[in-house]
Amino acid sequence: MANSRFAYVRTYELPDPMLPGTFPIFRLDGHSFHRFSDVHGFAKPNDPRALQLMDRAARELMAEYPDIVLAFGESDEYSFLLRKQTTLYNRRQTKIVSTLTSYFTSCYVFHWSTYFPDTPLTYPPSFDGRIVLYPSEREVRDYFAWRQADTHINNLYNTAFWALVQQGGETTTQAHATLRGTVSKEKHEILFSRFKINYNDIDERFKKGSVLVREEVKNLLGDKQQQEPQSQPILQMPKQGTASKREKKRKAAVNPPTKIELLHCDIIKDTFWEMRPLLHLS
Amino acid sequence: MANSRFAYVRTYELPDPMLPGTFPIFRLDGHSFHRFSDVHGFAKPNDPRALQLMDRAARELMAEYPDIVLAFGESDEYSFLLRKQTTLYNRRQTKIVSTLTSYFTSCYVFHWSTYFPDTPLTYPPSFDGRIVLYPSEREVRDYFAWRQADTHINNLYNTAFWALVQQGGETTTQAHATLRGTVSKEKHEILFSRFKINYNDIDERFKKGSVLVREEVKNLLGDKQQQEPQSQPILQMPKQGTASKREKKRKAAVNPPTKIELLHCDIIKDTFWEMRPLLHLS
Amino acid sequence: MANSRFAYVRTYELPDPMLPGTFPIFRLDGHSFHRFSDVHGFAKPNDPRALQLMDRAARELMAEYPDIVLAFGESDEYSFLLRKQTTLYNRRQTKIVSTLTSYFTSCYVFHWSTYFPDTPLTYPPSFDGRIVLYPSEREVRDYFAWRQADTHINNLYNTAFWALVQQGGETTTQAHATLRGTVSKEKHEILFSRFKINYNDIDERFKKGSVLVREEVKNLLGDKQQQEPQSQPILQMPKQGTASKREKKRKAAVNPPTKIELLHCDIIKDTFWEMRPLLHLS
Amino acid sequence: MANSRFAYVRTYELPDPMLPGTFPIFRLDGHSFHRFSDVHGFAKPNDPRALQLMDRAARELMAEYPDIVLAFGESDEYSFLLRKQTTLYNRRQTKIVSTLTSYFTSCYVFHWSTYFPDTPLTYPPSFDGRIVLYPSEREVRDYFAWRQADTHINNLYNTAFWALVQQGGETTTQAHATLRGTVSKEKHEILFSRFKINYNDIDERFKKGSVLVREEVKNLLGDKQQQEPQSQPILQMPKQGTASKREKKRKAAVNPPTKIELLHCDIIKDTFWEMRPLLHLS
Repeated sequence: MANSRFAYVRTYELPDPMLPGTFPIFRLDGHSFHRFSDVHGFAKPNDPRALQLMDRAARELMAEYPDIVLAFGESDEYSFLLRKQTTLYNRRQTKIVSTLTSYFTSCYVFHWSTYFPDTPLTYPPSFDGRIVLYPSEREVRDYFAWRQADTHINNLYNTAFWALVQQGGETTTQAHATLRGTVSKEKHEILFSRFKINYNDIDERFKKGSVLVREEVKNLLGDKQQQEPQSQPILQMPKQGTASKREKKRKAAVNPPTKIELLHCDIIKDTFWEMRPLLHLS
Repeated sequence: MANSRFAYVRTYELPDPMLPGTFPIFRLDGHSFHRFSDVHGFAKPNDPRALQLMDRAARELMAEYPDIVLAFGESDEYSFLLRKQTTLYNRRQTKIVSTLTSYFTSCYVFHWSTYFPDTPLTYPPSFDGRIVLYPSEREVRDYFAWRQADTHINNLYNTAFWALVQQGGETTTQAHATLRGTVSKEKHEILFSRFKINYNDIDERFKKGSVLVREEVKNLLGDKQQQEPQSQPILQMPKQGTASKREKKRKAAVNPPTKIELLHCDIIKDTFWEMRPLLHLS
Repeated sequence: MANSRFAYVRTYELPDPMLPGTFPIFRLDGHSFHRFSDVHGFAKPNDPRALQLMDRAARELMAEYPDIVLAFGESDEYSFLLRKQTTLYNRRQTKIVSTLTSYFTSCYVFHWSTYFPDTPLTYPPSFDGRIVLYPSEREVRDYFAWRQADTHINNLYNTAFWALVQQGGETTTQAHATLRGTVSKEKHEILFSRFKINYNDIDERFKKGSVLVREEVKNLLGDKQQQEPQSQPILQMPKQGTASKREKKRKAAVNPPTKIELLHCDIIKDTFWEMRPLLHLS
Repeated sequence: MANSRFAYVRTYELPDPMLPGTFPIFRLDGHSFHRFSDVHGFAKPNDPRALQLMDRAARELMAEYPDIVLAFGESDEYSFLLRKQTTLYNRRQTKIVSTLTSYFTSCYVFHWSTYFPDTPLTYPPSFDGRIVLYPSEREVRDYFAWRQADTHINNLYNTAFWALVQQGGETTTQAHATLRGTVSKEKHEILFSRFKINYNDIDERFKKGSVLVREEVKNLLGDKQQQEPQSQPILQMPKQGTASKREKKRKAAVNPPTKIELLHCDIIKDTFWEMRPLLHLS
């Protein structure tokens, strides 16, 4: 075949397996989203539509890839925990990173108009992705604690900052100067004394970020009744999506029916993890 | 800061620089596009709209990333040659793969309705990406020859196959059986004797795939007049896109104005390469 | 400086850090030791001098590198467990593998004449080395169990094989044929019924391999009295060896005085590990 | 088999192939050789015995591994160029680095007494090794130029430094101070005016380092007559060494008879390379 004398170039593709027995965490970050949020008029400090769109794309990704058991999102980033034992794409790192980044991006653009019905997308947004491997549960928990602590720090700062700008009439330069060197407590006080904002009353979504967790459906009916109305779980059923037959078979074997819950709760303390022993085995 | 005791988890992110002095080739493949093309009614064996959409996304990617100097696409895959000396994202491999895959995907979904005005996208498509490094021009040329030879082989097979099915009334199983073991010449003959199809008359786009090549604009005006009407070059100007300021400065320094030409020509023989000495230096 | 225009070649050296939080196990294997053992007249199936020389080189390696806390050897191979938290050579994998392999080899040649006083070394032996990373204690224990189970299987086979050849007068081909398909019990029986060899009476060194374990010296004097005469511990004191000042300072900080014990005991069952909680933290 | 439930630990060993089509350069460095040279009374600034021992070990390594076509040594380091097309150990990087480092170390210790008949080795020396991949001949030449330029710079400095100390009666601190900031020409002058040393008269070995190059033996007899008496070539014949049968067959297939020449010549300028077209194809 004419092709064969060129086919040697395939041998230059090197293997990149992820170390077995480690927990892969996949993280996405918006590429140049500062500009993207300006162009598309995102509300400051937090735009609920933009956050819900991120949550939606993340949820779709989890629905498509059952090996993702937990996700955490804030602002324009999202982290996903894969099962330690995952054999997705034979644990080929680049294949996983690129495919997951692609599907998330695709969902983001695809669902844009649902969350921004009056704001047409003016150019295609993009994300970068990476995978970091963690050897033990301790590190996995600390990773998610790191992201949620970051959410808290950023949100407090941004809330104070935009209050100073939007309500206090400061320029952005002045606002940064006002906040320079202030500790947490002082930011709370600025918010309260100058703007009557009690930080504790702010939407949990903004303060805690978004937690998507895959839960087993034990009693389908009973479970449905208990669940908070706002959590909109997706029942993980074999879906009419892009998954190949092989993917589907893999899913079926792995999965009892699960649903994906959206929460805005603390994941730094032990409670969240103690209630979900499955995450420990993942 | 509360964050600091968790921040150690960052140290688990390992470096993945691409070897300096090598030519990076980035390739995308559609994920489960067999199904995607069925669901969206792609014409067989080739759907011009689908190919043009791929070309469009590829062109936008090249416009966004000036270090891409050449691209080749067929069916649901596209390959991109980056300059040997590229310092894009400090040559971090995963960052490059994930970002480029993401942007291409985003463009594909964003521009879908332009090419499929009457076919709504029913679910979000995705792509996987990879980078392979080649040490020399010889291997780069052989890589592109490998892809174009593959285009030829596949297209001849598919053209014959779908003629047998669509015009010859064979089932797909029968058509595969008819073609089993046939050489190139026999497929030509089946096409001609049974369906009056002269394979040589088939659209070059289908036989040769799509070549996108970045060319320097020497004489902007004169050049514009010469260019074939169908090639629709994008003049590479500082664009209002997602690029950060730093990206843009980098581009400006690197670039004399360039345009991206779409061709459907042979890239296996020497002529294409001899006419483009810049690719040799890349 | 004349050197500077060439110095760019240094940038081609890529980083290769070991993933943090994992247990590195370094394993050495003799290169073409079948031939080496023939040329130097090693006794079959086991040559105590050769095994003691391996143990000696391994012990010296542990004395030189305090981050090695456990080692296991059989035949011409040796495995070394490094502390999970080791920062040796900044966890650069190739640096560690090459240096440890080099030092072990050097010790092997250096101490040859002590263990083979009447057999001059006729050519320089060599070893290959590798590092495998394990995320948890479970896998570390299974790794060592894997090696010790291998020792058992090989030694039983070899003991029976060489009995058949040396005492039974079979050719090596015949001996292999005699043993083909036999299970453990049958080999025991061949040994006992034909050669009056009770496999259980064979030297533990041959059956169990060599275990070198670093133990803390709590009561230096008392400890010395208890220890079995054959174990020849090396008291880990700052030594006049090849270690750089920086190495030494690192050692001093890390180390309470330790000694390295040589054992020929079971490391598959729990007892060994339960008695050494320090290995769990390593 | 008892072994099988543990054997999964093997899957944690990850592949590390070297990129095809690149030139591997393997470099060894003495570990803590400052101390080693003090303890063993190496002459300063250069000890011919020590350098000859390095050359000997390097030559033995080349004799054992025919894919090494060129080597360059200075002080306690040595670099080895492998053929671009080498398939040694399936291009597994760690296997190559560790085995070559081990064999070199072994040769160094094994041949010690030949070069230091009156100086017993007091402890086992070690080396670290690394492999760097270069995509083209340009970089390979610049690599060797980099090392030879380094030899020149170091040797001039050390020659001046030790003249100041040994003949000028300066302390080492004073000598460093005397030389601080001096350019090449000034060091030449110090040597000549104060110590009557004409740097140009110094042994080429010290000024240029050691070059070991594999040359094809075209006319075995004629060739032998031409060769300078001091170069002691090793005729590369199938040897009684550690090589496995498979290794040997590989060698035989690859090799016309070659010999390894030791030179102390310039390898920065073109002449050396133009005379050896085989190195270009390597």
